[in-house]
Amino acid sequence: MSAAVEESSRSLAPALERIRADVDAFLDTLLAVPPDPRARLYEAMRYAAMGGGKRLRPLLVVAACGLFHTDRRRALRVGAAVELVHVYSLIHDDLPAMDDDDLRRGKPTLHRAYDEATAILAGDSLHALAFEVLADEATHEDPFVRTELVVELAGAAGPAGMAGGQMMDLAAGESPLDLAAVTRLQQLKTGALIGFCLEAGAIMGRVPPEGRTKLRGYARDVGLAFQIADDLLDEEGAEEKTGKKVGKDRERGKQTFVSLLGRERARQQADLLIDQALTYLERFGAEADLLRAIARFAVERDH
Amino acid sequence: MSAAVEESSRSLAPALERIRADVDAFLDTLLAVPPDPRARLYEAMRYAAMGGGKRLRPLLVVAACGLFHTDRRRALRVGAAVELVHVYSLIHDDLPAMDDDDLRRGKPTLHRAYDEATAILAGDSLHALAFEVLADEATHEDPFVRTELVVELAGAAGPAGMAGGQMMDLAAGESPLDLAAVTRLQQLKTGALIGFCLEAGAIMGRVPPEGRTKLRGYARDVGLAFQIADDLLDEEGAEEKTGKKVGKDRERGKQTFVSLLGRERARQQADLLIDQALTYLERFGAEADLLRAIARFAVERDH
Repeated sequence: MSAAVEESSRSLAPALERIRADVDAFLDTLLAVPPDPRARLYEAMRYAAMGGGKRLRPLLVVAACGLFHTDRRRALRVGAAVELVHVYSLIHDDLPAMDDDDLRRGKPTLHRAYDEATAILAGDSLHALAFEVLADEATHEDPFVRTELVVELAGAAGPAGMAGGQMMDLAAGESPLDLAAVTRLQQLKTGALIGFCLEAGAIMGRVPPEGRTKLRGYARDVGLAFQIADDLLDEEGAEEKTGKKVGKDRERGKQTFVSLLGRERARQQADLLIDQALTYLERFGAEADLLRAIARFAVERDH
Repeated sequence: MSAAVEESSRSLAPALERIRADVDAFLDTLLAVPPDPRARLYEAMRYAAMGGGKRLRPLLVVAACGLFHTDRRRALRVGAAVELVHVYSLIHDDLPAMDDDDLRRGKPTLHRAYDEATAILAGDSLHALAFEVLADEATHEDPFVRTELVVELAGAAGPAGMAGGQMMDLAAGESPLDLAAVTRLQQLKTGALIGFCLEAGAIMGRVPPEGRTKLRGYARDVGLAFQIADDLLDEEGAEEKTGKKVGKDRERGKQTFVSLLGRERARQQADLLIDQALTYLERFGAEADLLRAIARFAVERDH
């Protein structure tokens, strides 16, 4: 680990630890197991959603909400909602009919630990719960804010966002993609949800859409850099740290930023994107420090 | 067909025809195919969602909204949102890992016509779109109404509702259910969404929760009667009319209202439930006639 990595990991470590504990506590209540035949469904949701994951998306929401001095408990609800969508998408993407993965977050994928039917239903259940959490009045006293959150998250998760990106990824098996196509694919598949995290901060802070340009720029650049780092980890990472199988993109002949640019240029590109992301935060003071640390962590992490 | 069936089908036929056309027109715009690699995803959604189905849930929403003189275009948006959730659930339930069905609405199921991965993603996409449609300001000018719709639909679709019911249905394969358990299962699996249709009418009409008791009673009884009729159709129906394979519940050894009660008592029970449902509408005048006709249609239909 370089000195810079150690420094950025150290500064972010307490924030990451705190968000992990907070998200788990929230999910522990939300996913309380009922004493009836649905118990297995709730246990499956808990297995997939709790006690693992970087919780980068909830941390982004909390950091973005911090710019506008939003109450942390409310920011956490929005962060948990994004994480529910993220986890549901991982469950469905891991299914045999999709990426057919056996390992996720250091343990067997949900359909391996339970079964496929339960995995499909657990994903669907987490998906519905995300919107229930957002629209609940505990999330914000202004119902207009809550509807805006729902519209934006649904848009980011649906066919115009994440689900559309996953479709492009599946279709890519048939015809190899160029850099522009991989960029577009990733902007939908992972970028849309990361974009929502920042947008949510502005929505919670009642910043009108025209005042969100800088946050959108930050999200776009960090999102792409995060994906490039993911591609690098798939090439160079250690399975015991990433918690998932490495080298699988190459094995499948998938075009990634690394296969298209080579490792060195990919890494340079990620660094460049982070530099650019940081310029969007210039007009903010110390309250943007968490967003700055997350940007560096996005490309310097080893998991 | 008995005279009574003909009468009730005739009186409902124009309403059913109109709602089918209206829902299809709405979906045609919502699911416009983009000129990029996501085209296949949108085509799959259109295949599953358009040009078929009784559209009973949208009709229930429009009928319930009619009690409170809600603008029909707005009611249609809510009806379409419920239908999106209903269609997504059919797509996922039909998957090989779930009920493994080949036929739906008279044509191959989505994963048969396309592939499993596309079917999973199309279901997920329709699910997200449902909430985007509800939370959009075109649905109601009052954002509080929109958030209430989102909370209620998410609750009806999620693990406390439809998805929970499907889990109970899957689990039922291992230990046979009694009548109380089948009733509870169906109240979640099909009843929750039908309950939302009526609740939505009251929400759109700004009726406070304590004023919704009669509509909830109607929904509960019609929902169960509808399911009993489904079970009877699975025993006695004609494949070319129901558009799905018949006799499959018995083949799978599943407990249904018919297997538990026998055909005759099941039919009596359905009729009794409809009589009871109609009493909940007594304080309403002619504006509840559509709900009355739907109640009769729910048990008298042949598809």
